[in-house]
Formats: sequence, structure tokens, C-alpha cells
Amino acid sequence: MTPSSALKTDRYELTMLEAALRDGTAARPCVFELFTRRLSGGRRFGVVAGTGRLLSLLREFRFGEEELRYLRDADVVDAATLRHLEAYRFRGTIRGYREGELYFPGSPVLTVEGTFADAVVLETLALSVLNHDSAIATAASRMSIAAGERPLAEMGSRRAADDSAVAAARAAFIAGFGATSNLEAGRRWGIPTMGTAAHAWTLLHDSEEDAFRAQIEALGTGTTLLVDTYDIRAGVETAIRVAGTGLGGVRIDSGDLPIVAAAVREQLDGLGATGTRITVTSDLDEYAIAALAASPVDAYGVGTSVVTGSGYPTASMIYKLVARQGADGGWISVAKASADKASKGGRKAAFRILADGVAQSETVVVSDGFEELGGSQEHPGGRALQVVFVDHGEIDASSEGHAGTVAARAHHLRVREELPVRALALSRSDPAIPTVYVDAE
Amino acid sequence: MTPSSALKTDRYELTMLEAALRDGTAARPCVFELFTRRLSGGRRFGVVAGTGRLLSLLREFRFGEEELRYLRDADVVDAATLRHLEAYRFRGTIRGYREGELYFPGSPVLTVEGTFADAVVLETLALSVLNHDSAIATAASRMSIAAGERPLAEMGSRRAADDSAVAAARAAFIAGFGATSNLEAGRRWGIPTMGTAAHAWTLLHDSEEDAFRAQIEALGTGTTLLVDTYDIRAGVETAIRVAGTGLGGVRIDSGDLPIVAAAVREQLDGLGATGTRITVTSDLDEYAIAALAASPVDAYGVGTSVVTGSGYPTASMIYKLVARQGADGGWISVAKASADKASKGGRKAAFRILADGVAQSETVVVSDGFEELGGSQEHPGGRALQVVFVDHGEIDASSEGHAGTVAARAHHLRVREELPVRALALSRSDPAIPTVYVDAE
Repeated sequence: MTPSSALKTDRYELTMLEAALRDGTAARPCVFELFTRRLSGGRRFGVVAGTGRLLSLLREFRFGEEELRYLRDADVVDAATLRHLEAYRFRGTIRGYREGELYFPGSPVLTVEGTFADAVVLETLALSVLNHDSAIATAASRMSIAAGERPLAEMGSRRAADDSAVAAARAAFIAGFGATSNLEAGRRWGIPTMGTAAHAWTLLHDSEEDAFRAQIEALGTGTTLLVDTYDIRAGVETAIRVAGTGLGGVRIDSGDLPIVAAAVREQLDGLGATGTRITVTSDLDEYAIAALAASPVDAYGVGTSVVTGSGYPTASMIYKLVARQGADGGWISVAKASADKASKGGRKAAFRILADGVAQSETVVVSDGFEELGGSQEHPGGRALQVVFVDHGEIDASSEGHAGTVAARAHHLRVREELPVRALALSRSDPAIPTVYVDAE
Repeated sequence: MTPSSALKTDRYELTMLEAALRDGTAARPCVFELFTRRLSGGRRFGVVAGTGRLLSLLREFRFGEEELRYLRDADVVDAATLRHLEAYRFRGTIRGYREGELYFPGSPVLTVEGTFADAVVLETLALSVLNHDSAIATAASRMSIAAGERPLAEMGSRRAADDSAVAAARAAFIAGFGATSNLEAGRRWGIPTMGTAAHAWTLLHDSEEDAFRAQIEALGTGTTLLVDTYDIRAGVETAIRVAGTGLGGVRIDSGDLPIVAAAVREQLDGLGATGTRITVTSDLDEYAIAALAASPVDAYGVGTSVVTGSGYPTASMIYKLVARQGADGGWISVAKASADKASKGGRKAAFRILADGVAQSETVVVSDGFEELGGSQEHPGGRALQVVFVDHGEIDASSEGHAGTVAARAHHLRVREELPVRALALSRSDPAIPTVYVDAE
């Protein structure tokens, strides 16, 4: 059975396809845009993540025998639509923000061009991947900023569904985390993995000392010992007695961390273990990390809060038809008109306007006439934000796999430097820069 | 390449395994327990979901050539551990709450018995699946209670990562939803699917009327027309003019729903379309559904809030060693002692105590001596809550696939009837029934 992502799709995409094949609109050239109307949670910027994953899933977006059988047996669409789907592959063009790029309300994060039939069926998959991964990356970037130079590891797999955990590890890495506990993320995306022992390790043994001795025997004195199964002070004393002052690190997973970290540092130093590092892992989020900035903590491990987007587990990106050809072949900008969910029609190009290297605005050039935007990836004082991911059905592989993940991380860390200082605060506020719409000439 | 779930595992499980193989503790018989210390968000009950999915993933929990190559190349564990993993299959016993069952703080939702080596490596996968799926099911059950007899559909795939969306659809179905928009969930779990058209369908056409005509042509007058792309009043008028008074339904995806629903009902009735149903889908959660109870709404579609657990995207279940054999072969109850994260050691059996069919308490019988609990699945006035899912490595298939999903839903709807009335309120409160620990004789 060939893996297929094609049924990770809302039924109505295929229902619309059926109706469009019947009335001839399936062949109409269309532009769909993936964007958000707002940043969730008063965040000052968003971080695009998931693009590399989406492109790999797009390669598997095929309706094979098993998918077609289900659609037929469940009477989802008619025979003509099944024949269309059997031959389906995306032949359109996708451009969008590089993975790791920042985004703001109205940023055209992904632009999908093709016939209605080609483009409409990608809605659910594109949103699933980008909404989840971007939500995680946005939260992770804030944590990474709060952690500063201290290493930060993602260890939240147990608090995310099995496959999302792998995706979350990737998104966190792109946004500045240095490692993950998730081995599948290590294999699939080349992310460094970390981890030594849980409380069960200590409880398995007749004493904490037995457990520590066995761990050091197996993993060496450079390992990190978990010291809070019983009493932290006694745990630290035992750890150094067993390992010596060359012990790599201790991990604390409970307690009031600023107080506990200070006490443990003092104890370690008093025992001569001045080089033994302190890792803390108890219910951290960006605020707790920031509150530990002045504490003698050497590394952070973050679980639940990063894999659940620290209160905002999904971005609010939507996938909207913004332009299409009419019956006469002319382009028409379109948009939903409802008061509370209005959006801006037209094809768009986007630029980050910089002054002295600092972002000033997200400038979105909107075209009604349409064609003139084809090659316009230049704007005075601006960095062009969109690149081509899929060119008439040909997927550019450079965003995928290990290399794409590493490139996305590097891109994120680079463009984050362009943010104005006010963007780095954790409190709720407006987007760090305004989105400015400009009509194409 | 054979699918494997084995690397969906935190690195430290394998690091502990390596150390345990070296010091001989790997062979110690152990009891791990999956439970929660609290219900997230002041919820009055939790709903167990994911068990069927977990058991299917357990079948794939094998370290094949690709998994072993990664572990070797990334230097995760030593050669002896790789040899152990190559031969690994879970040979222990797993019992736990039926899928769809309610749970409370301390409920032994899953009990995994086996050697340390057998049981420790399942921690991450078991928690990933049960924490996610139970969080969704818990939120979904509240929505299902709020919706009463009105049909409720899950349509949040775009707001959850691609694979979690499929799992979320399943969890929502188990907790009382009647359908999903997600086709993969339809194929994989036999869940009914629904959906007709998005705003893009209307925008694709030169007029709303053209769009409605084409949809009816393709899907019949029984279809549901989305009437809020431009002006709802005009949309409803057009819908009935085009479809006639036999139109199946209209869908409203924006606006102040109580007001809009009442106006649309009045308009439909005035036009003679008294049988045309109104489906609302705009940013619903359990509170919004409850607020619409007196409105003329016929069906609900819920997106973001259900797939993100309505503010609580993960349950807080943990996987802890609670008992093990000592060097002398005697059983020892164990537990972490830290003040803020204490737990209760010992092997447990659980019963829902009922009076006149109404739940009174979650009674957890704890054994230090251990053996006497082996067959004790009876308690006066109580319904035994645990069943055997895996017996010495043999997985009972009845929880898996379509049949397992349907059975879980039926079980949930049945046991929900046992809840006291106060459990059905949506506001934050204490668990609906207390958890009572009883020592085994």
C-alpha cells in the first residue's frame, strides 16, 4: 500500500470538485491564498513552519486504489469525479514564505495557483500542516528568545498526538530549540536528540544511590542525574558522592525552580562540583523561562507548553480563493463580504520593508489586473518574502528533509534579528510591525 | 519499509533500557500505571479515548532495520541494547479502562505489567495517544451534552496537524459527535462523513445564484447551501428561489448566531421552506452550543474548539512505575515523593460505585501485597472498570478498527448516563465524584 495523504481532506473539497466538474468551472484558473486575519494570543509576530512537511505530503497526494475504493463505497463522489481523482496530481504553482520566516496579519504565507480542480483539494492538508506547525514554532520562538544563549530542548512528545509530536519537535527546532527527546524526529529530520533517565529509573532500584551508580556505569560521569525523586538535597549529595565532582549535570523536574535552582547551585559548588550543570524541566513555558533568567540554570527542557503552542495550539490561518478567471478569460479579484470575516481579494506579493536592518512594515502589493505581479519580486527598501516551492507541478526539494529543516532554522534565526526590540517582549500586544497594502500600478 | 511506531519514543526510555540491561534490572517485573492527578480545566469528568489506536500502534512497535540503523548511526544506545531491541516485542499484560469510559483523578486508566525492559519503552507512545485523544473526547463529550438531540459534526481538521486531525475525528465520534468532515477518518474508522461547499464555491462563480444552481444540479435539492458569502438575507432568498422550498438546508458560518439563526428561520418559514434545516458552524464551542439551545438551529458543525480540546489540548496523564519486584522476588510499591508531584504506589483495581444507577465514587483498591488483586474484578455495588487489552503479549483485537470505535462510542454514551446531574454543567468545578482509595485486605 503506497502511502497517500489524499484523504486528509475535508469531504466538501471533493463535493465542490464534483459540482465543478459538472458545470465546467473546475477548469477555471484560480489563486488561493493561505493567510491569517490576526495573530493568536496577542503575539507580536508569527513564525511560518510546516512548509517542508507539506511539500513532502504533496508528493503523496495521490488517489490510489484504496482511496478510490473508499470514496466509491462510501458514495462520497460520483464516477466522473473518481476518474478525475485517479489521474490527479497537482500541476499548479505554489509560492510562499520561506519556512522559518515571520508572518503578520494578512501576510500571504502561501499562494496556490492552478485550476479550481487542482487547487481546491489542497485546502485541508495545507491548513492542517501550517496551522499546527506555525503555532508550535511561534510559541517556541518566544521561548527561544526568553532562553537567550542557554540550551533549550523540546520534550513534549507525551503531550501531543503521536505524529504531531514528531512535527512539533521539528517546528520547535526551526524556531530555535536545540534538541528534542523524540527519536522519530531525530531520524526523520536529523534533529539532535537528548535524554537520560526518568523517575522510574530511580524507583526501579532499591535506592537512589544504586540507580545513580548504575546510570553512571552505563552512561559515564558526563550524564545527567535526575535528583528529585525523593529529596532534592539528599539527591544532589548522593549524586556527587557517587559520580564525583566531574558529574555532567543534574536535572530538576519539580519544585519552585528559582529557589530550588539557587539552592542546588550553592550545594553543588559547596561540594566542589562547580562544573556540574543544572537542567530544569518542570512545567516550563516562555514566562517561566524568562523568570529564571537570573537563576543559575544551565539548560531548559520544555514539554507540554511548546507542543501545545503555549495556550494557542493552532494558528488561525485560512485558505481563501482571492482571484479567478472569469468566463471571458479576464482575472477577477474575489473575497467574502461578511462583516466579521472579511478578507482582501486579489493576488499579492509581499515585502518586509527594512530601515537600518530593522523591520518597519509588512508591505503587501495587491494586484487586480494580476499579470503585472508575475515577476515583481522587488520593492524599494524591501526584502521579497515569497519564493517558488512548486512550479507547474514540479516540487523544489530544497525545503524538505534534513537539509530543508536546517535551512529553515537558519533562516528563522537570521530574520528574527530584523525584529524591532519591542517585538521581543512576551506580553500581549499588537503585531510588531503594521501590514500595509499597496495597489500594484 | 514496514511501518513502525517504535521511534515515537523519548530517547530516555532507551537510555534507561541500556543502563538496565547492563545492571540486570531490565528483567525486574514491574507495574506501570497511566493516570492523571487532576482533571484539566475544572472539568467534572474525563473521557478515555485512544486505546484502540494505541493497541494498533503497539502491533507496529518493532525495531526494524531502519529504526536500528538510525539508533546505531546516531549513537543513541550501545550494541547490546540494539540486539535487545531487534528482538523486542511486548510480552507483558495491559489492562485498563474501556475506551469511552469516564475517568477521574487517580483512575488507573491503563496498567502495564511486564519486565522493566518490556514496559518502560511504551511510556511515550501510550501517553501521546491517550493524552491527545482523551483531551479531545473530554471536550467533545461536553459539546455533545450541550447539543442534546441535535446532530453535531466535527470539522476541525484544518486546525489540527494532519494525523492528529484523523485521531481527533475519531475521539469526537466516540464522545458523541455523529459525523466528521475528515475523509481519512471515514476510511480508517468508519465514521460517517459530511460536507457540501465552502465560500470558495460561491466565489468561483459569477454570482451566488450560479453557484447555488450548479450545486443543486450536482448534489440535488437535499444539499446544504452556504448562504453567508455576501449578504445572508439575500443568500437565503436566492437559495429558496433556486432550490424551491424543498431545499435540504442552509449553513451559516459567521455573524451573531442566535440573532442570525432566528432571522433565517423566520425568513425560511415566510418563504414556505419550513422543512429547510439550519446548520451553524461559526466558532462554536460547548458554551456557544449551549447558548443556542433555544435558537432554531437544527445542526452544529464544530471546528477549532473540538480538535484543540476547547482550551485543554492535552490531558495531564502520566505513566509511572507503581510497583516492582525486589531482588528477593517480593513486590514493592513505589512512588515519587516530591511534594508537588506525589503519586500513589501500588497495583490497583478500580470500580465505579453506583446507587440507583447513579455514580457515587471512583473506588480504587490498592494492593501492596499485590497478588491478591490478580483476579479481583468484583466489588460490592461497583462496576469493574478495567478489562484486559493485552494478555502476555497477545493483543485483543476487539478495541481496534471500525468495530472498536463503534463499541467505544456506545460504551461512552451508556456510562455517561450514570453521571450525577451536577456532572453535566459546563462551569469549572471539582470532579463529579470523589476518588476513594481502599486498601486490599
